[in-house]
Amino acid sequence: MTVELISVGTELLLGNIVNTNATYLSQKCAELGFSLYHHISVGDNEGRLCEVLRTSLSRADIIILSGGLGPTQDDMTKEAVAKVFGKELVMDEASRKRIESYFKFRYQGSNINHVVTNNNWKQALKIDGCIVVDNDNGTAPGYIVEENNSSVILLPGPPSEMKPMFDTHIFPYLQKKQNKVFLSSMVKICGIGESKAETDILDLIEGQTNPTIAPYAKNGEVHFRITAAADNESEAEKLIKPVVQELYHRFGVNIYTTQENETLEDVVVQLLKQNNMALATAESCTGGLLSGRLVNVSGVSGVFNEGFITYSNEAKMKYLNVTAEILKAYGAVSEETAREMALGAASTSGASAAIAVTGIAGPEGGTEEKPVGLVYIACLVNGNVVVKEYRMKGNREKIREQSVIYGLDLLRRSLLDMKK
Amino acid sequence: MTVELISVGTELLLGNIVNTNATYLSQKCAELGFSLYHHISVGDNEGRLCEVLRTSLSRADIIILSGGLGPTQDDMTKEAVAKVFGKELVMDEASRKRIESYFKFRYQGSNINHVVTNNNWKQALKIDGCIVVDNDNGTAPGYIVEENNSSVILLPGPPSEMKPMFDTHIFPYLQKKQNKVFLSSMVKICGIGESKAETDILDLIEGQTNPTIAPYAKNGEVHFRITAAADNESEAEKLIKPVVQELYHRFGVNIYTTQENETLEDVVVQLLKQNNMALATAESCTGGLLSGRLVNVSGVSGVFNEGFITYSNEAKMKYLNVTAEILKAYGAVSEETAREMALGAASTSGASAAIAVTGIAGPEGGTEEKPVGLVYIACLVNGNVVVKEYRMKGNREKIREQSVIYGLDLLRRSLLDMKK
Repeated sequence: MTVELISVGTELLLGNIVNTNATYLSQKCAELGFSLYHHISVGDNEGRLCEVLRTSLSRADIIILSGGLGPTQDDMTKEAVAKVFGKELVMDEASRKRIESYFKFRYQGSNINHVVTNNNWKQALKIDGCIVVDNDNGTAPGYIVEENNSSVILLPGPPSEMKPMFDTHIFPYLQKKQNKVFLSSMVKICGIGESKAETDILDLIEGQTNPTIAPYAKNGEVHFRITAAADNESEAEKLIKPVVQELYHRFGVNIYTTQENETLEDVVVQLLKQNNMALATAESCTGGLLSGRLVNVSGVSGVFNEGFITYSNEAKMKYLNVTAEILKAYGAVSEETAREMALGAASTSGASAAIAVTGIAGPEGGTEEKPVGLVYIACLVNGNVVVKEYRMKGNREKIREQSVIYGLDLLRRSLLDMKK
Repeated sequence: MTVELISVGTELLLGNIVNTNATYLSQKCAELGFSLYHHISVGDNEGRLCEVLRTSLSRADIIILSGGLGPTQDDMTKEAVAKVFGKELVMDEASRKRIESYFKFRYQGSNINHVVTNNNWKQALKIDGCIVVDNDNGTAPGYIVEENNSSVILLPGPPSEMKPMFDTHIFPYLQKKQNKVFLSSMVKICGIGESKAETDILDLIEGQTNPTIAPYAKNGEVHFRITAAADNESEAEKLIKPVVQELYHRFGVNIYTTQENETLEDVVVQLLKQNNMALATAESCTGGLLSGRLVNVSGVSGVFNEGFITYSNEAKMKYLNVTAEILKAYGAVSEETAREMALGAASTSGASAAIAVTGIAGPEGGTEEKPVGLVYIACLVNGNVVVKEYRMKGNREKIREQSVIYGLDLLRRSLLDMKK
């Protein structure tokens, strides 16, 4: 079963809003096991909208349109769909009553003297013969038009109206069209480049049928989504399990999770908790970003109590006891300074784990010997310090972001090593 | 001149990523005065990509593709474009050397054992006769193919590579195709809600022809882009100037800049420099994010040397001299604690300015008296402390992000007040 999404609205074409509706509906279609090959965004223009809709109808079984159901002249999605199918717009009495009571309720007791304008009544018109879908969060109903084995679904544009309408009414409608169950696992990897990771499992990717394996590259990470189709959930699980096992076999400790919603910082915080350890941070070039990432985790207090942002040499000496000799002999961006920073963060805070980052994020400050992108990360766990040198590419933002990810990953590996 | 955007990537169709590239490129096309009537997203499939490209070529003068230039089998944008134009892929020696040195540099001395795979060399192939565009933030170059009065522009998918490439190389290229000069100013506002800001200048927005005024809402900020079309730059400037003046008249100090590329943190760092002041930070719920934002500014050293992440009460007492009495009487999230934190950060560091943030970011930790979203920000400038209470809406991420923005804005206003 093939689906296409058509997002309607000139504000999308001007870049005034981000199309999060398309993302949401795509996820839902993937969950339902539908094939989705095209998204189209088009403005509030009847001619272009009709043309795009005709093209989509020639390719897909189900078309989901969002946007252009509002009360203004600009809104013409319903009109365009009616035109393409040669249908009339007719008054829907239930919608008319709903709109009447919506405004009555909304402005009840308020000082706003709202007049239901002719525009508003436009929203009570439906395409002749269609299914009207209630909107519990606004005045624009949704519609389903079933014609010649196609379903065309019209949804309002505001995400706060579209999402609940989709979940409540459209998802169950679409589920009936799908007789398979689709389940997926996300294998998240850190410490291997995208192309290396993919090469390592190219045989699996190329041989895939069910489950399928799809790679996603993030800054500093690679994710593989494994999706299985089966008659029921336990069958799907049985299909996914051996593939995940095989990925563990190949990537080992580079895999930090197989949970869709688990992040690298979640895993680090869990490992600290499991080991009853508190972490202190000492950041120079990242300037607080690594600590900020850790505090994304809601239950971080207890394992993370304090951190030092030591951007100047003076701050490194004052709070982390880095000596003037070390700074003079090796410089602020060096293995030795990173080590001292981690040791100092642990001793000042009394924490049993510490991480320190020092590097040249650029664009200024690089030399031939120490170029922009040179970063040292030191990790102390129970008295043992590991220091790694990294040479990163990219602009200031990217270098700092990568430093955070590699720092969290080094900490994760140090905590895992400790267990052995 | 008509432009179409084609976003390439199965991850878009699966809803794994939000298509922020389309938003960014749409804004840029609007800025350039191009007409944009269609966005299309299509997966990594040669047949469908070719079909979509042919359709776009039949409708538009310029096609901008993003994504599908990576090193893997999946990536086939270049191959599809070559096919549509009947061109060969040939080795580009400059790209080949660039990739070689990229990997050599990147993994030098790191713990990542990277092998330049055959996949990587695929990125050194170019479409015969095209213009190769350097990528300063990754391995995939961009390409421009000029054929039959059409320009097809291929950009890498990751926003951190696409955006700088577009700004540096593609924007000036496109600008030459436009015979009118389009000039725009970005009026950036902090401290007023989006709908309030829009209502305040509704008469200007509705009466606009040239220049146009377009609002963009960001988390905690509102931006208005004022765009004028004219025969030359000085004519365009003349059109823009009175509109910017009118906005200054209406929004006053809420406007923090009218420079496109200037951020709130840039303005704060400039004000600190102008006043010869050094800032110290003390962060609880933001956990380093505010300091991390400041360190976005490349020349921050000198005005920002150190910061304290004091997530626990103990850390607040130890480094910032917040007393146990204050914490007991008012709690960690209180006006009094925020004030003590700012005073402590200044006295411990010796800095003449300090900012402190303490709040409940949720989802846990809220009470009826102190709900999730309650945040106190204290700002010390030359001995004077201002503390503000905020009640923010949204999830943990949004509350922390807003805290950073409101914190920077409070600091900006305090530094401006000092001047008076």
